Amino acid sequence: MRLARIQSDAGPVPVAQRDDRWEVVRDLFAAELEFTGESFPVGQVTFLPPVEPRVVLGMAHNSGRADRALPPQAFFKSPHTVVGDGDAVILDDGVGPVSIEGELALVIGRRSRHLAPGETSAFVLGYTVGNDVTAVGQIPLDDRLVQAKSGEGFTPLGPWIETDVDPASLGITVLVNDVVVARSSSEALAWNVDEQLVYLTSHLELGPGDVVLTGAPGTAAPVDPGDSVEIRIDGIAALRNPVRTGPARAPLPTP
Amino acid sequence: MRLARIQSDAGPVPVAQRDDRWEVVRDLFAAELEFTGESFPVGQVTFLPPVEPRVVLGMAHNSGRADRALPPQAFFKSPHTVVGDGDAVILDDGVGPVSIEGELALVIGRRSRHLAPGETSAFVLGYTVGNDVTAVGQIPLDDRLVQAKSGEGFTPLGPWIETDVDPASLGITVLVNDVVVARSSSEALAWNVDEQLVYLTSHLELGPGDVVLTGAPGTAAPVDPGDSVEIRIDGIAALRNPVRTGPARAPLPTP
Repeated sequence: MRLARIQSDAGPVPVAQRDDRWEVVRDLFAAELEFTGESFPVGQVTFLPPVEPRVVLGMAHNSGRADRALPPQAFFKSPHTVVGDGDAVILDDGVGPVSIEGELALVIGRRSRHLAPGETSAFVLGYTVGNDVTAVGQIPLDDRLVQAKSGEGFTPLGPWIETDVDPASLGITVLVNDVVVARSSSEALAWNVDEQLVYLTSHLELGPGDVVLTGAPGTAAPVDPGDSVEIRIDGIAALRNPVRTGPARAPLPTP
Repeated sequence: MRLARIQSDAGPVPVAQRDDRWEVVRDLFAAELEFTGESFPVGQVTFLPPVEPRVVLGMAHNSGRADRALPPQAFFKSPHTVVGDGDAVILDDGVGPVSIEGELALVIGRRSRHLAPGETSAFVLGYTVGNDVTAVGQIPLDDRLVQAKSGEGFTPLGPWIETDVDPASLGITVLVNDVVVARSSSEALAWNVDEQLVYLTSHLELGPGDVVLTGAPGTAAPVDPGDSVEIRIDGIAALRNPVRTGPARAPLPTP
């Protein structure tokens, strides 16, 4: 089933797709979805980011099978970076080179801590398309990645969450200005989704709506202001976002 | 003025102190506080964490004036780590050595991005006492600090926010089991609060309730389960938290 958040006259509402309607539900994270009776026709809605996470994690060392020689490692992105389908990625003047990364993004469904191998799928609400935008020019200046990963609009997610999909082997296609620049699969991730969640929840708690960007298995590409990016994940959706110029950066403190 | 969140029969409520009462307000972040008329006597309330941040940042390279030779750098902590006065810091079995760090914590009052030097104080709601608990044994395993900084209860904050305090030179005292183990001052930070906010907001957006732990100027101390920690910041408050043992960690994925 597809779950989403859409704009309505009354503000953002959570919805689930049944046939050709997006039907409003009370709570995307309820054990049993409760429908309010209100609905909107498919194709005539404006998608918001499908969740409002408190925690957004990305997997490092997960760009391909060779990274399995390294231990799993992760980094935080600010949840303020989350935007939806169609929203702009903003590149500040002076930020340097920026890449987009097409990634399978998992959405946590309930409190997750110290999960054991093989049991993690029960804690996942579903999967969406993620773009882990990265100011690669900032990485040499800040190996903790705060400078590289948390710019405005740096985490496009959506348009919806697919709950009935096996994450093991999903094709990922990245297009910049309608030209395919990368093709890969979640099968190429060094650490699979189950292993990632065992690792992460051994160190911290995850909760409903939190998001893990599962890594970029050869799905990164440089972008410039004016570009348009599309990330397609088979069985889930296509996510499209323009890249725009932002304001000039304020002067930084100097010693 | 002191601002806080307390437990009431109706759930958590935001409050502001007037004389000997905690008076309920509609919104801690309003330009003008609006009082509901309900109030509770000082000394008879249970404090919750004073805010529910979406972003918690800590300043690295900010343990003393010598760090001014290094550029400012920061790290994220999960907002799920935030607990209040009296709540436990939980040390998982196997986490290794852990230190507490007594820190001045600033609370953002409104959307902050690309702030210029000298204008940052208008974006700060106030200051509270913070404890940046750190599993120092995890740092060599994960230099991005996800493993070291985001355990359960790893960010005690509170008991309240003081809005009328100058952050430039506040004494910080750290006690473990009622014995003073460190004395310092915010004056010893390598980068002051204004410089920190110019740096951070040049790279990312901060919003109401977000928290910056401003660094540990010689205010770290090792702790073990069973210890009690008290951090006092002159002109703000004292924050007390016990340290307890948590569950054993789940087995980690291996290559």
